[in-house]
Formats: sequence, structure tokens, C-alpha cells
Amino acid sequence: MTLIEIDDPEDDRLADYVRLRDVSLRRRLETENGLFIAEGEKVIHRAVAAGYRPRSFLLAERWLASLEDVLSTHPGVPVYVVSEAMAEQVTGFHVHRGALASLHREVRHGVDDLLAMNRLVVCEDIVDHTNVGAILRCTAGLGWDGVLLAPRAADPLYRRSIKVAMGAVFDLPWARLPDWADAVPTLQRAGFTVLALALSDDARDLPEVAASLPADVKVALLLGTEGAGLSSTWIDQADHVVKIPMFAGIDSLNVAAAAAVACYSLGPAGRRSA
Amino acid sequence: MTLIEIDDPEDDRLADYVRLRDVSLRRRLETENGLFIAEGEKVIHRAVAAGYRPRSFLLAERWLASLEDVLSTHPGVPVYVVSEAMAEQVTGFHVHRGALASLHREVRHGVDDLLAMNRLVVCEDIVDHTNVGAILRCTAGLGWDGVLLAPRAADPLYRRSIKVAMGAVFDLPWARLPDWADAVPTLQRAGFTVLALALSDDARDLPEVAASLPADVKVALLLGTEGAGLSSTWIDQADHVVKIPMFAGIDSLNVAAAAAVACYSLGPAGRRSA
Repeated sequence: MTLIEIDDPEDDRLADYVRLRDVSLRRRLETENGLFIAEGEKVIHRAVAAGYRPRSFLLAERWLASLEDVLSTHPGVPVYVVSEAMAEQVTGFHVHRGALASLHREVRHGVDDLLAMNRLVVCEDIVDHTNVGAILRCTAGLGWDGVLLAPRAADPLYRRSIKVAMGAVFDLPWARLPDWADAVPTLQRAGFTVLALALSDDARDLPEVAASLPADVKVALLLGTEGAGLSSTWIDQADHVVKIPMFAGIDSLNVAAAAAVACYSLGPAGRRSA
Repeated sequence: MTLIEIDDPEDDRLADYVRLRDVSLRRRLETENGLFIAEGEKVIHRAVAAGYRPRSFLLAERWLASLEDVLSTHPGVPVYVVSEAMAEQVTGFHVHRGALASLHREVRHGVDDLLAMNRLVVCEDIVDHTNVGAILRCTAGLGWDGVLLAPRAADPLYRRSIKVAMGAVFDLPWARLPDWADAVPTLQRAGFTVLALALSDDARDLPEVAASLPADVKVALLLGTEGAGLSSTWIDQADHVVKIPMFAGIDSLNVAAAAAVACYSLGPAGRRSA
């Protein structure tokens, strides 16, 4: 392995790691340079195990041992060893988990790959990385096949999404839709029954829809943005509008909780031995 | 109303609002002084509508209009009017929603009130305020009756919990258990069937438990801490251990998502028209 000690936070070789909390800077920097950041020893192991190629590592010395397997199998990749104080200066926050890696961003699945699957979650403009990460985790964990993202939905490879997804982002197939307006017709042409999760007056209750849906039908579940929910365009185009029955004057669940309930109820997890 | 302009961030009258991001300071300060903070015009309206008594308000001038109804019905309560820059200096962060209120903390329900109900969520050591807030929101929204909290679980009246709970914390009955060790036997003596949500090998699948549970039985659902899950004590004492069937090598959902799935599946929301 190539250990490089660095003691200048302005050193250009650390450019992949600057200001990790500055969302708009990071979005530009990571897209333009084709990289993403994995944080923490576990997440780094998962990213590398899933075949993502590291560009470099940024570590405090005491994390070398726990990553030795990864470092030794990537002998050409620079390992920048810095003090924790310096890591904080570069990244702009206290790196709790002590280890960061920059990896090459890859497009692993196309929209057509996803359309060939049976159970998809489709995120419209969900802009919060925590929510996108949680949705990927529950999509995978509850036995759905993949996630499609509208053009404005948050990036699953953003550090915060990865952390919340607990690695699901590396293994679960997902792809970015090129076009918002044509998304629902595209799903329907590919044979999906499209369900919009929304609060419309004509929405059908989730348990009823779950009970009436044949087990072998292709299902796409549309989820809308945090505040306003799904666009009327997507709601109008969907085959059914579905709502989770709500009580006590609470009008909705958080989108990640709602996604979990719907994936459970409409998917294999809720059917098993029921 | 009593408008008081303040231009010194060290002014003692602002003591309720200092360093809102400093969790350990706030925990001590709010408990010792018997107060909690509501953030944002909507949350303040809900807290006051639920009968909580304001101690004071801290507002930028442009928020006066939207809170006029509340301010005018509480003429004796001081309204501190400050610049947004000063609000930031006092609280330690940019107050996006522009308005803060300090309200008197009240114990509204005792454990016995909760034990008389039919469907309870019981949080063991869930220490993250976001999770506690989300759990309160889904408990109420999915038609359960209340939440019991173990001694070490996070505070539902902490600013961040309130924000995530979307006001559910003011209306949903909840109470703090005095004793961790006796919690499960106490529930059982009160007639509850106690279900532990956990990953034990002998756990039964949630859909199977939901299908076999009579609709009129009293149910208490135990939820464990974020990382390690429920203690073995609570798991061993429970009547049944229940797990959400998981796929794709993902071992669990986030506790708030898991709570939503379980409350849906075991409660009235999942049964309606099913």
C-alpha cells in the first residue's frame, strides 16, 4: 500500500474530501469528477466488496489496521494518513468513524434493466438524502427489486444516503429516469401496474389494494416529495391511487415510513405465511 | 401583548433559548426549569391549542403577524423581539422558521392511564430524538393509543422530537416508565399481550402474528435501541418475539420504519377493509 502522510489541509491531493457538509459544492464536485465518498470502515468494506474502485483513502493512523485487507488488495491506491484534527479541517466535520474513501462513481444499471424487474419503487422529487437512503434500505430489505429515481430526486451515492441505506445502495439495482414527464407511461408500457401513494380523496386503502393485487403482477410504487407529495401528473397517470389509513388527525407518515409500510404490505414480506 | 425588544444576546431573559443544539445542556436546562421549546409557527400553534402554557416567545419581527392570535390570547406572556442574527447568536443556529416559544412542561398522563388503553408502543432505550418523534407520529397516525418510554429513552418534548412528530407529541398520550426491570411484567399484569420486535432466531414472522392475533386483545409492542435492539431481559419476558421478514441480506429496517410496519400490520390501519 502507498501510505502518504499529509499535514497541509490545503494539499490538492485531498481535493476529493473537502467540505463534506456543503451539499451544493459536493453535488457539483462529485458529479463533475465522477466520485463518491464512503464513510466508516464498514461502509468502505461494503463498497469495495460490491466492486466499486477506490480512488484514494483518507484515514487517521489508528484506522489503518481495520482496513488493511482493503488497502493491501489495492496497492496502487494512495492512502492519505492525517491527524483527526486535520481530517476535521479538510472535511468540515468531526469524522466519527475515522475513515473515508473516495470511489469511482459508476452507472451500474440502466432504466431498461429496472423495467425488466417485477417490483419497483419510483421516487419522484424526494430531495432529502436521509429519505432516499432509508427508501433504498427498505426497498431491498422488504424484498423489492429496485428503485427508479426521477431527475430531481436526491443522489443515492451521496455520503448521507449511503450511511442511512446501510450499504443497500451498493447492491440494490437503481437507475435515474432521463425524463420526468414520460415516467409513468414508460412503466405502463413495460407492463407495470402503477400505484401512486397519495392522499387523494379517491385513494383506495392500502390493505384493500394489497389483498386484491395478484401476486404475479408487476408493481411500481410511486412516492412523492416530502412536503407536497406526488405531482398531479403522476397521480393522474397512475393506475391506482393508494393511501395508508390514518388516524388521530395525523394526515401522513414521513415518506420513508410510508414507503416501508407500502413495501411491506404490497410485497413478499407482508405476504409470507400470512 | 407584551413586546420586549432585546439587543443583548447575553440578556438573562433569553435563558430559556440558549444553545438549542447542545443536547446535554438542553436536557439539563429543560428538565430543571420545567420547560420545552416549540419551533416554528405551526408547532407553536399546536402546542398552545393542546393546552400547553407559554412562558415566553422569541420572534423576529416579521413573525409577529402569523402568531398574533396566540400572542393576543396570552397577554401576560413576554414576547422577545430580536433580529434574526441575534436569534442565531442566542440559539446557536439559524432559526429557519423564525419563531420560538418556551412552554411549561407538564406530566399529562401517568403510566396507569396508558395501561388502561388497548394498543401501546413501548420504547426501550431509543436515544435518538428523531426516532422517538417519528415513532410518536406513526403510533398516533396508525391508530395506536399511546407510547410508554423506558427511563433512558429520548425525550418526546425535545425540540427535534416535536418537529419530527409533527405535533403528535401534544395529543397522543405518552408516559415515562419509572422502572426498566419491571416494565414487561407490569404490562402483562395489566392484561397486555407483549410482543418484542427483534431478530431472534425463534422470532415469528410479523404477518403470521398479525393474522393470529384476535382484534380485541390488548397489545404492547416493544421496540429496542437503534444499534443493539431490545435487551435480552425484555425479549425473554415478552409473550412473543416478532420479526419483519427481511430480504437481500439486509438484516433490519431503521427502528422508526420498523415501528411503522409493525403498527400498521398489528393495528387497525392494516386491518381496515382487508
